[in-house]
Amino acid sequence: MCESNIYIVAPGQEDDAGVLFLEAVDELLPEGDNAWRVTSIFGEQKILNGRIRSMHLVDHRIIFERST
Amino acid sequence: MCESNIYIVAPGQEDDAGVLFLEAVDELLPEGDNAWRVTSIFGEQKILNGRIRSMHLVDHRIIFERST
Repeated sequence: MCESNIYIVAPGQEDDAGVLFLEAVDELLPEGDNAWRVTSIFGEQKILNGRIRSMHLVDHRIIFERST
Repeated sequence: MCESNIYIVAPGQEDDAGVLFLEAVDELLPEGDNAWRVTSIFGEQKILNGRIRSMHLVDHRIIFERST
């Protein structure tokens, strides 16, 4: 399966060492300007307030920067 | 491998029937507010002006809406 894990870093944090927010994410949908509805392959759904900093799909790694 | 294909739809287009922009994308990095640098597993790199409409990673499908 080709889901990714979402990690969150703090606003302005220089490195990409993030906290795991949700594992095995299949679907990401924008919710307005600065939020995302993310759903895992297990059906778990969460709202994330922040913006995408980077996505590395082959590494299954998506990093968000939390909103201030 | 867990790369995705990027498709582009027109601004305001109701359905998600998009035109293929880049296949086998590994990395997506924001470039300012409304553009993305996307890189395939083959090293091909393109700049995309638009915003993400949806991502379905298990289906290897990322849809962008082109900027007006």
